[in-house]
Amino acid sequence: MPASPTASLPSLGQAILDRADQLARHSDMEGGLTCAYLTPAHRAAQALLAEWMAAAGMDVRVDAIGNVIGRYAAAAEAGPGARVLMTGSHFDTVRNGGRYDGRLGILLPIAVVDALHRAGIRLPYHFEVVAFAEEEGLRFKTSFLASSVLAGRFDPALLERRDTAGISLGEALAGSGLPGGGAAAALAAAAVDPASLLGFIEVHIEQGPVLLHHGLPLGVVTQIAGSSRFQVRVGGTASHAGTTPMNLRADAAAAAAEMVLLVEARCGEVASLVGTVGQLEVPNGSSNVIPGACHFSMDIRAGEDGIREAAIADILAGIERIAARRGVSAQVERVTPVNNAPCARWLMDQFATVLAKRGLQAFELPSGAGHDAMMMQRITDIAMLFVRCGNGGISHNPLETITAEDAQLAAEVLVDFLRHFQPRQDA
Amino acid sequence: MPASPTASLPSLGQAILDRADQLARHSDMEGGLTCAYLTPAHRAAQALLAEWMAAAGMDVRVDAIGNVIGRYAAAAEAGPGARVLMTGSHFDTVRNGGRYDGRLGILLPIAVVDALHRAGIRLPYHFEVVAFAEEEGLRFKTSFLASSVLAGRFDPALLERRDTAGISLGEALAGSGLPGGGAAAALAAAAVDPASLLGFIEVHIEQGPVLLHHGLPLGVVTQIAGSSRFQVRVGGTASHAGTTPMNLRADAAAAAAEMVLLVEARCGEVASLVGTVGQLEVPNGSSNVIPGACHFSMDIRAGEDGIREAAIADILAGIERIAARRGVSAQVERVTPVNNAPCARWLMDQFATVLAKRGLQAFELPSGAGHDAMMMQRITDIAMLFVRCGNGGISHNPLETITAEDAQLAAEVLVDFLRHFQPRQDA
Repeated sequence: MPASPTASLPSLGQAILDRADQLARHSDMEGGLTCAYLTPAHRAAQALLAEWMAAAGMDVRVDAIGNVIGRYAAAAEAGPGARVLMTGSHFDTVRNGGRYDGRLGILLPIAVVDALHRAGIRLPYHFEVVAFAEEEGLRFKTSFLASSVLAGRFDPALLERRDTAGISLGEALAGSGLPGGGAAAALAAAAVDPASLLGFIEVHIEQGPVLLHHGLPLGVVTQIAGSSRFQVRVGGTASHAGTTPMNLRADAAAAAAEMVLLVEARCGEVASLVGTVGQLEVPNGSSNVIPGACHFSMDIRAGEDGIREAAIADILAGIERIAARRGVSAQVERVTPVNNAPCARWLMDQFATVLAKRGLQAFELPSGAGHDAMMMQRITDIAMLFVRCGNGGISHNPLETITAEDAQLAAEVLVDFLRHFQPRQDA
Repeated sequence: MPASPTASLPSLGQAILDRADQLARHSDMEGGLTCAYLTPAHRAAQALLAEWMAAAGMDVRVDAIGNVIGRYAAAAEAGPGARVLMTGSHFDTVRNGGRYDGRLGILLPIAVVDALHRAGIRLPYHFEVVAFAEEEGLRFKTSFLASSVLAGRFDPALLERRDTAGISLGEALAGSGLPGGGAAAALAAAAVDPASLLGFIEVHIEQGPVLLHHGLPLGVVTQIAGSSRFQVRVGGTASHAGTTPMNLRADAAAAAAEMVLLVEARCGEVASLVGTVGQLEVPNGSSNVIPGACHFSMDIRAGEDGIREAAIADILAGIERIAARRGVSAQVERVTPVNNAPCARWLMDQFATVLAKRGLQAFELPSGAGHDAMMMQRITDIAMLFVRCGNGGISHNPLETITAEDAQLAAEVLVDFLRHFQPRQDA
């Protein structure tokens, strides 16, 4: 076996960060990074990723939903029955987001493959890097769109979903030049055969402060937290702001304010629980009219489904109590919940072994955010390697950052992992 | 003196309500009443009011801002030096508003003049009914626009103010066909000479529940409450909803929610004090992003300026405390406050005398809402007659209502008031 290919490339970490900068130049907005599904910026990012994959020695294909898949073919001795270890993450972003969220999990494996390729190292299995075209749901409110196609879980009803400009997903795909032109059959045919997979691993910026607080560059994810999302519509009585005494009001915004604080207080009771009201609005509000309506979103997540469900039950009961006491109505619409996705212990252990060899703690932590691995877990075993997030752990924000040293370390760990990877014993 | 002209017209009240229905057919929206300044619906309402004034025996003029002014000329014996008692209110509305707010104070005096005219009764002074074109501020965020012109208090800078379609007030006036074409000089020249005025009275629906709760059809206003308006911009840190622990958040919406409840609690401590957050929004909120910003309006009013100012001081201090504790910023912009406008005792007393003659209590109450009389009080003495508001006192809402009996009673009181009116003794 040749010497470690990364030992000769101490600047791999910086190169990864440079490419994240380069990729972020393609944006739907001035002065920040927004890369929504199938916009010109998105198509430019897609082309650049395909170019980098090819230059790293991979065979590149683009599937019917726009995923860019690079295959670093197995060593010849693996034979025609060689299976696939898959990795990847998404290259779309939230509005005015960070440049590492998702993209690190594409750029880092490309850099690793490039290093293996330059060192003349082939692996005993096919290694595929997937640049998922859509995970954030910004344009069509459809998160995990791209991974659902790969996992054979695409819902054709989504083809009718429209963006704010009134363009449907089906129309956007038909005009995209992607293979299949948005046909449901083509999207179904883009699914991978689960039997061909050895597993799915994902490298991702933590998007939180835990590793930073522990002074650790890397962590091994135990599970991806399930989330439950709700839309709440509070209905009160619009009336004159100057003439309606405080005790005779049915103010939808004041009621919603109390509900917002309830979510915050209840979710603050358990460490692994989080609850967020990210959208909040009095529709057509006027400064001199008591709000007759107030709408808000709720996103509740926990490391354990039971903790999350208990919190939800308390919060929904609390919303009812607040509404009843204040004489307002509260309609709660529950968006389909996503259950926890556990990581596979046998894959986690192989990451732990590599970390231990380098004298690094194999620190385990759950993921509060959803990831493409969550969808892939429906068809194969998964694991995730988290990389420390700077600036207090901020993400979904231009301030999101990682260091070149941490990226370098993650790349070296991935190389070791790939070179010592052992398929699941009972598989 | 002939017999009471209203005694022969027992259906005056119902006729006023019918005209309010007829006027409400001109609306900017389907299925509700919105009449914004200088829209086609507004111009149609203006034309109808002019027609009704003329039919009631008045000389009608339209001024440079769009006010329709009907003069019921004084009896010939009053001579060329006759002065003017003025009344009126506004015919524009809030979005999806009520049909009596403002309009009652135009339609009721028109009906009264009509009755006097049919009975052949002239008054010893000119009686003018003004249909004010703009009071609510819906289109250009400029309340009291029309009365400010009449009172000689128009601010020419407002001509540059633009509506949401980007049309400036100056442009709207130039295209309106109104006299003067929006020239600042024409608007200044539309001011009335204060020396010509005997006073200004305004009949208005209460827009609150006080008369209803006391079982009284009419009330005499003591003063129009001053208001203070603010725009508050809370700045937090946008971050990932799934990965940022509750104790490490700087959530702008949760902070704003606490501020909303502070306004509600503090203003609930004093009976004559009201505080309203009518606008509340997380700009570009996403369900999976912790709000980095939240904006809201505050409107605070009280019967006494001192009570209002004390509440404002407490609320602003509380906002600062909440922001500091939560690690968010709070920028508070104070919109010019409007001070209390007291009603003239000598005019109030003349209403009280008329009410007493009919065995009605001369119930006195402050007005929490602003009215055109507030602006007219800058140049002349004012009084207001409030008419009971049904449906719990609701206003700025399609549910706003009055009864035909109360309208009839108000019309009879106004006739008596006009026929026995005595100018201020020291004037």
